Amino acid sequence: MRELARRPGPSTRTRVEELTGEAVRRHEDRLATEEPLEIRLAWPGSPARRVWVTMRTPGHDFELAAGWLLHEGLAGPGLVAGVAYCTDVDLSPDQEFNVVTVTLSGPPLSDPGHRHDARSTGSSACGVCGKDSVAEALSVTAGARWAGPVPDPDVVRRLPGLMRGRQPLFDRTGGVHAAGLFTADGELLVVREDVGRHNAVDKVAGARLLAGDPPAGACLVVSGRAGFELVQKAISAGVGSLVAVGAPTSLSVDLARRGGLVLYGFTREGRTVRYTGDPTG
Amino acid sequence: MRELARRPGPSTRTRVEELTGEAVRRHEDRLATEEPLEIRLAWPGSPARRVWVTMRTPGHDFELAAGWLLHEGLAGPGLVAGVAYCTDVDLSPDQEFNVVTVTLSGPPLSDPGHRHDARSTGSSACGVCGKDSVAEALSVTAGARWAGPVPDPDVVRRLPGLMRGRQPLFDRTGGVHAAGLFTADGELLVVREDVGRHNAVDKVAGARLLAGDPPAGACLVVSGRAGFELVQKAISAGVGSLVAVGAPTSLSVDLARRGGLVLYGFTREGRTVRYTGDPTG
Repeated sequence: MRELARRPGPSTRTRVEELTGEAVRRHEDRLATEEPLEIRLAWPGSPARRVWVTMRTPGHDFELAAGWLLHEGLAGPGLVAGVAYCTDVDLSPDQEFNVVTVTLSGPPLSDPGHRHDARSTGSSACGVCGKDSVAEALSVTAGARWAGPVPDPDVVRRLPGLMRGRQPLFDRTGGVHAAGLFTADGELLVVREDVGRHNAVDKVAGARLLAGDPPAGACLVVSGRAGFELVQKAISAGVGSLVAVGAPTSLSVDLARRGGLVLYGFTREGRTVRYTGDPTG
Repeated sequence: MRELARRPGPSTRTRVEELTGEAVRRHEDRLATEEPLEIRLAWPGSPARRVWVTMRTPGHDFELAAGWLLHEGLAGPGLVAGVAYCTDVDLSPDQEFNVVTVTLSGPPLSDPGHRHDARSTGSSACGVCGKDSVAEALSVTAGARWAGPVPDPDVVRRLPGLMRGRQPLFDRTGGVHAAGLFTADGELLVVREDVGRHNAVDKVAGARLLAGDPPAGACLVVSGRAGFELVQKAISAGVGSLVAVGAPTSLSVDLARRGGLVLYGFTREGRTVRYTGDPTG
């Protein structure tokens, strides 16, 4: 009889010792789950092939797969025909929910071939694995540039706080990043969490894509720093502005300037810092 | 005439607008520099080949390269014969300081072949790119297990504060991680900073390796979360305990338990949480 597959949850129980110096408190705690997800891509006439493996927090896996394909320039609106967990007899039961196949209604928008050959694996903290070269890593598949309004700084400063109220996994574990898509008026459209900050961004775009909504938006908010791979994803999805709670890097500011993305960092209730899209640029 | 190579610094100047709601303050600010580093490996009878590309903060590049090779099980104490920036005529001047060749005195300790074939590129946030499969990503090349003492919890709680006083790049940019190696008594041996948390750990091990010191130590401290790739590196270097300021993940606790690593998270002056190596495990 086939062993029943175990579907991993977003958090995992563990026993810990909390040590304050005055007392040792032994209790149960919750960790953010970190497990591999393999993404396979199929289209008419082409069998499913592995295109990516990433460490991620289980949950919204279909969105993660669809959003990753969008950000890589492989899929776009209207092209995803289906997403499913794999049921290969080769897979051990505990890996069944760690493999997702995305089926497109036509060929992918760019060549996924070398990614298959490279068979690269990413960590939950990795956004550009599987690239063939530095040049490719630094390139951006730009989406249609955002033509609508972006939030003004008064709205921008409120966005991380609005998102913070919608991060249940962070509340439980203290160990995950979040990404949220907002309108220019500060209305939250979707928020997703993951141990990998780039995965959270992929899940947001994938949620919009699978719902039939435009993957772009006025403003993408991220709970951590804005490394260049997050700027790449924002530009490739056609987002108008990126708001980070933490710092940007030299490369992310360069890339945002070239891609026409308004970039904010160190954002909290009373203060934000604008790095691009400003009159002093 | 050949253009003079520009050696990138660890931080980069930029113009910003600071927006508090009451005032707009335009001033110069400093960003953590993020640039690609290509690591090449050569040994007697084998020409230099690319084994890894990562985004990193320039500075201590030789240590980063040597430490990465150590953590990947390719190099060990006494095997590194030399490290140098490349002077390929093919390289554009602004990339000259972004390519490092490590020359070994003998063949590498494991096969770097598939890494070369995969030609994978990592981001500054990525610790396991270039792995061929999930199984490989999850495997650990265990070093000799640490046989000496590890810090007791009273010492552990002081370590992030001791390291915090030695993070000049964080002071300037607010956007980099740090890693530090300590004795069981809480004496700081070496601390390094980088936009990528795994790079900071590579630099610490590489600093020890190139100085002729044992790369392992009683305690490795990291300024952020403890994802599984940091646990992998600690185990592969033979470190005794890992102390994180942030959260561990489910996979890092699993791996630490299997590898005999004492793992602490959420560590600050008055409190720490022990996840493995405790009597309740």
